[in-house]
This record gives sequence, structure tokens and C-alpha cells, in this order.
Amino acid sequence: MMYYPPSIRHLIRHLATLPGIGEKTAERLALHLVRARKKDAEALAYSILNVKEKIRLCSRCFGLSDTDVCSICNNPSRDAALLCVVENVSEMIAIERSGAYYGRYHILQGALSPMDGIGPDDLRITELFARIDEGEIKEIILATNTHLEGESTARYLSELLERYPVKVTRIASGVPLGGDLKYVDQLTLKRAMETRYVLE
Amino acid sequence: MMYYPPSIRHLIRHLATLPGIGEKTAERLALHLVRARKKDAEALAYSILNVKEKIRLCSRCFGLSDTDVCSICNNPSRDAALLCVVENVSEMIAIERSGAYYGRYHILQGALSPMDGIGPDDLRITELFARIDEGEIKEIILATNTHLEGESTARYLSELLERYPVKVTRIASGVPLGGDLKYVDQLTLKRAMETRYVLE
Repeated sequence: MMYYPPSIRHLIRHLATLPGIGEKTAERLALHLVRARKKDAEALAYSILNVKEKIRLCSRCFGLSDTDVCSICNNPSRDAALLCVVENVSEMIAIERSGAYYGRYHILQGALSPMDGIGPDDLRITELFARIDEGEIKEIILATNTHLEGESTARYLSELLERYPVKVTRIASGVPLGGDLKYVDQLTLKRAMETRYVLE
Repeated sequence: MMYYPPSIRHLIRHLATLPGIGEKTAERLALHLVRARKKDAEALAYSILNVKEKIRLCSRCFGLSDTDVCSICNNPSRDAALLCVVENVSEMIAIERSGAYYGRYHILQGALSPMDGIGPDDLRITELFARIDEGEIKEIILATNTHLEGESTARYLSELLERYPVKVTRIASGVPLGGDLKYVDQLTLKRAMETRYVLE
């Protein structure tokens, strides 16, 4: 590190704060940027600044957006009667990637976790109910994660949602496709047995 | 990708141009930057801009520097009688890291490679001789790489250097420390035998 001029040392230090980037990789990336065309390196720098400048939470679903309302909430071809509730943006992205969903989302910004001091007021639950109150939504799909916090959050929400005239569903848990039963943990297998369905 | 707002898509695209960063990793890094404190993300962006703004080649050794003459060339405690000739900055860094060298460097900016159209005029050879002409240098250590191009470059330079009143040495090649002879390639073993030295 000390063999580099100060500006490169700073760059290495900042690159090494990125997840999964150790000092060796940071060094390699820094030297790449030193050698790269000025235009290309600047494009990267400005795209970072641009993201920090523009990205905000969508005022409806609390997903990431460049604009006040995100492109999914704004898309008239998405089914307004379906609302998928997830913990974070990454789960929304995973579901989008599956191509199996054509409704809208509500991103809670986390899951209930008393241990970490995260209670209902820390999640976007009030905003969820406000959206339901608008009357368009017919089904709420609870797609929080299947770990302890995600399960409790789904259970908590499903109880509160009993008062609303909406169908409440939970994404299925079970043996992953291509999975080998003998490698699947007990809890998952138990859930897969309990939630088995009739083949038609 | 298309699930992200445009500013994030751009950032992912630019991050994915970095060596060893695939689209998945670029996505992860971009989401990290989205979530990071504005201050931290901006510090990274500005350190990239700063490097592109400041870094130049040292006017003496052609290493990387923030200033006209680099800190090694400027360091009076480095032995001015010793000059280590390397191909690129990364080899200089490797030698610095070994802690075994206290002289100065000359970075050729590559090796002779007729196949790639790189001849003597493309390397900083004239500048090397100009430095020798100054009269302070007593020994030139040829530390180009040990691949074909590096070897030819060392041989080419050693011939030209015969005319100069300097000692010319080449870094040793041989079996790496901790290496197992049966895994060492024939050429390396041959060289190790040929350049064997007397234990004192």
C-alpha cells in the first residue's frame, strides 16, 4: 500500500470498503482504473454520484426509484388488484426475475425482529393498510422470507389483515426444484408435507 | 437488470466493466452503494476522479506518481547507485513488497514483443541510458519478467549496456521457495541448475 502515491492509496482504501472486495482485489481494481481511459473511469465515478443523487424510495411501494413513483407502480399493465408484500428490494428483484408475477409490490423495509429492536412501527405497515384502504387491491401475497423474522412478520400481518376484505396468501415453502429430499432440512420437509396440494 | 431504475442500471453496467466483476457482483456492489451512506459512496466516486486527475508517470522512473517526480526517486535514503529495471508498475510494487531492495527503479512500460509490434522505441530505453549517463548509477538489475518477452528484453538491454561502465545483473530464476521440485517445469529447473551458486 505504502508503495503507491496517496491518491491511489485512497482509492484502494475506498474500494476495499465494498462488500466482497478485499485489499488485493481493491488494489487490482485501482490499478485497472489508473490504466483505464479517463472517460471510462469518470463514467463509473459519475454513475455512483448519480445514483446517490437520484435514487429514492418510491412513495407508493417503497421500492427503489429515480422518480417519485416507481416504474412498476406507474405501469398500467401491472395488475392493481394483486399486491405482493416483501421485506426488501432484493426480494422484489428476485420475484421480478422469476417472471411469475404481474401485480404490484409493497416493500416493508425489513421484518419484525424484537431482538434487533425492529417493531411494527419501523416497517411500512401503516402505508400498506392505507394502500388497501384505497379499495383496488383484492389479494395480498405475503412474500416475506421464510426465516424466523419473515415468518413472524407474515403471521403478524395476516392477523391484522383479517379485518380487511382482501384475500391473504403466503408464498409456498417446500423442497426447492431440482432438490434432493435427503438434503432438505427437517423444517422445510415438515412444511412441504403440511402444505401439500392436490394434483389436478 | 430491467427491474432497476435507469440510474442503477447504468451503475451496474459501469461496475461490470471492472476486471473480475461479473454482472451478479456488479449488481450486489450497486445495491450496496445505493444503501451506503451518501458520504461513503461519494468518497469512492471522488477518489476515482482524483486518481484520474492526479496520477501521472514519474518523469524520472516512469512509475505512478501524484507529483512530477515520485516519492521513491525523491527519497534521499534510497541508494542512487542501484537501478532496478522492470517492465511495469506491478512488478515494481512486487519488489517493493519483498522489502529486499533499497535502490531506485526504471519502469520500461512493457517488454519487447515483435508479435505485438512493440519494439525498443516503444519502451523507455532512451530515458534509461540518459539516467545512466548522469553517472551516479553503478549497477543495473534487470528485473523484467521471465517469460519470452521479458527474457528477450533483458538480453537486448544487457547487450546495449556493455558499452556503459555499469555492472549488469539479472534477478535469479529457479525453484520458488517452498516449491516441490517434481512440480517445477523443465525450463525453470534447467535454469536453476545452470545458475546454481556456491554456498558459503
